[in-house]
Amino acid sequence: MGLIVHKYGGTSMGSTERIRNVARRIAKWARAGHRLVVVPSAMSGETNRLLGLAKELSPPKATAASMRELDQIAATGEQVSVGLLALALQAEGLEAVSYSGWQVPVRTDSAFTKARIRSIDDQRVRADLDAGRVVIITGFQGVDDHGNVTTLGRGGSDTSAVAVAAALRADECLIYTDVDGVYTTDPRIVPEARRLHTVSFEEMLEMASLGSKVLQIRSVEFAGKYRVPTRVLSSFTDWDIPLDEEARSGTLITFEEDEKMEQAVVSGIAFTRDEAKITIVGVPDRPGIASLILGAVADANIDVDVIVQNVSHGGRTDFSFTVNRNDYARALDLIKTGVLGAADATEVSGDPKICKVSIVGIGMRSHVGVAAKMFRTLAEEGINIQMVTTSEIKTSVVIDEKYMELAVRALHRAFELEQPA
Amino acid sequence: MGLIVHKYGGTSMGSTERIRNVARRIAKWARAGHRLVVVPSAMSGETNRLLGLAKELSPPKATAASMRELDQIAATGEQVSVGLLALALQAEGLEAVSYSGWQVPVRTDSAFTKARIRSIDDQRVRADLDAGRVVIITGFQGVDDHGNVTTLGRGGSDTSAVAVAAALRADECLIYTDVDGVYTTDPRIVPEARRLHTVSFEEMLEMASLGSKVLQIRSVEFAGKYRVPTRVLSSFTDWDIPLDEEARSGTLITFEEDEKMEQAVVSGIAFTRDEAKITIVGVPDRPGIASLILGAVADANIDVDVIVQNVSHGGRTDFSFTVNRNDYARALDLIKTGVLGAADATEVSGDPKICKVSIVGIGMRSHVGVAAKMFRTLAEEGINIQMVTTSEIKTSVVIDEKYMELAVRALHRAFELEQPA
Repeated sequence: MGLIVHKYGGTSMGSTERIRNVARRIAKWARAGHRLVVVPSAMSGETNRLLGLAKELSPPKATAASMRELDQIAATGEQVSVGLLALALQAEGLEAVSYSGWQVPVRTDSAFTKARIRSIDDQRVRADLDAGRVVIITGFQGVDDHGNVTTLGRGGSDTSAVAVAAALRADECLIYTDVDGVYTTDPRIVPEARRLHTVSFEEMLEMASLGSKVLQIRSVEFAGKYRVPTRVLSSFTDWDIPLDEEARSGTLITFEEDEKMEQAVVSGIAFTRDEAKITIVGVPDRPGIASLILGAVADANIDVDVIVQNVSHGGRTDFSFTVNRNDYARALDLIKTGVLGAADATEVSGDPKICKVSIVGIGMRSHVGVAAKMFRTLAEEGINIQMVTTSEIKTSVVIDEKYMELAVRALHRAFELEQPA
Repeated sequence: MGLIVHKYGGTSMGSTERIRNVARRIAKWARAGHRLVVVPSAMSGETNRLLGLAKELSPPKATAASMRELDQIAATGEQVSVGLLALALQAEGLEAVSYSGWQVPVRTDSAFTKARIRSIDDQRVRADLDAGRVVIITGFQGVDDHGNVTTLGRGGSDTSAVAVAAALRADECLIYTDVDGVYTTDPRIVPEARRLHTVSFEEMLEMASLGSKVLQIRSVEFAGKYRVPTRVLSSFTDWDIPLDEEARSGTLITFEEDEKMEQAVVSGIAFTRDEAKITIVGVPDRPGIASLILGAVADANIDVDVIVQNVSHGGRTDFSFTVNRNDYARALDLIKTGVLGAADATEVSGDPKICKVSIVGIGMRSHVGVAAKMFRTLAEEGINIQMVTTSEIKTSVVIDEKYMELAVRALHRAFELEQPA
């Protein structure tokens, strides 16, 4: 009998029939004796509808005042879904009460549209739990010190759920979503891909940021910081499967290194499509050049992913980085017109058809030769490596996008990820 | 240069294009130097959509807990429209800020779905006005002492606007709506019906309760209690008509008797269709009988309108009342099975095809013969009067519904309402 936080995404809350199923699932947990706090997202499509209306009326240039109003508008999506879920639970015969962020309160800073949670008051929620109520709290939002409604940015409901679990020192935070866990890689590319029963929080961080998109990355950071046992599991199993089975399903994010001792060196293969590469050739090797190049790109609001600079020869070096393919033409133009001359560089070249493939595993820390095995595997398939970057638990390569599936499959096989750890 | 409250209904806020026009109208007032507080309704159809979703999920029997959730859900409609209007005003180049009821706060009791406003804090709003901002406040809602969201019931935005105007001691409260004022009667029945430039608050109360439906009756009570100069005017004039002209348009609700001195004895003809009449014949004339009959009807949640009991003959009298036609069969059945025997009455009869026509006018207080003129006019048209009730400023008759238009037209002509007062 524990204190459990459930989080349901917009798809799970997408219709009154689905909300009724969510209520039945929650009722199953409550009747088993658990104390429950639930954090639902807005019904799917609702946040987009609201922001679409707002966009039609907004001033041409966003200001703090206009972003405040965006949050005022967008926050209503979750306010509707908490109320509807409370009604559905009451119809199931449970006592239930819903709260918007400001009613808890969930306190945030004042960074409208991308606020960060500062604290969550647990007093009101605990009183309800003690009185036998299921408590439903809006995801995605909070209130700042001036009583303004704030939102946490897209996917913020994951973060809300983990933060609520941390504030209540919940026994587990269950993130119900439209996938049934974290996989060794995308099963659409490698049919043998295997669901991980556990994944370390650091691996999860790399998985999330590398495109596995199961959880919002800030929620993973939050789970790590407060060591909230967090489980990703499917909301599309029948609501009436045995609770024991449901409680063991999905993927649990862990924080204890030794839990991973017996596990594989590499846990998964992540990848990102739709990247583009830009290389500035013959850059003088002197302080300030990297900042000159990336400063110009950042000023144009273009996100940079991989950055590689190698040792120089004869006082000159090559400087490469990748951007989202949508930003390629703009970034290339920017470098040609604004940076090449200022940096006294020779020329700029680019390739809009590349991708990034990464092996991720906390075991890499203590195992040498993992990167070597990766490079050998790719070489055996005749895949040329264009760029390499590494971290303690990840090695990424940039390759021609036409080899992406081949590379992912070869690496998955080479590291024997289809075998249970 | 005054402090003005504007209220816009759901139709005026019905699309982004209409919201843009509302913003342009407000901007015109702001640029003329007025300080403005705006109370918009939810976009038309939105409250019904939200309550429809809620109805699908609600427990079969409403409880305080489920009604709390209904309010949590329904209140979001106005939260969206205040944010959208603030954005549209910012796009017009004005400074604007929106508040939900709890942010002002608008304090209410805890009667969910039909709460009453207790107080409105003017501090935050005044600070914004002093800083040159247009302040936009949600209609229809507030917050109770426990931090729960409450709503005021259908049409509550009118009441919100008048209450805000009272709290701020505004110079005028302008209710923009889809009619251009209060008329001597419905122009669809009497083409010569004339818009009243002013109407006393007591007449307005009778007009509203008698079916003229221009303003929610509680907002009129509020305007009377706090003597808020309130004007009903059209939101469908072009937004850029001269401000002077707009400020004099519509109908102003007044509170000073002497302002009406020169005016007509009768101000307007009101009527209600779809009523039904029930008469209990041969009721013993003893204490407790009226309560026995009406208690049973009230317990069945049936609203009673007109009640008439005349003097008795031989210890027995007839007792008549009217109900909405939808409740007729149920009320008749109730009387037959539950009341007739208990009351020791002879028989019950009814007529589901009647209507009520009323003449309303504060001048009737000091003019005799007004009712007599009404009865004579109806007699000249061969219309039989079935029931009569009177108050200080109103005389109502119940007649066969087929004569309704004829009666209204004849009375309008007899009291010369087509002539400017």
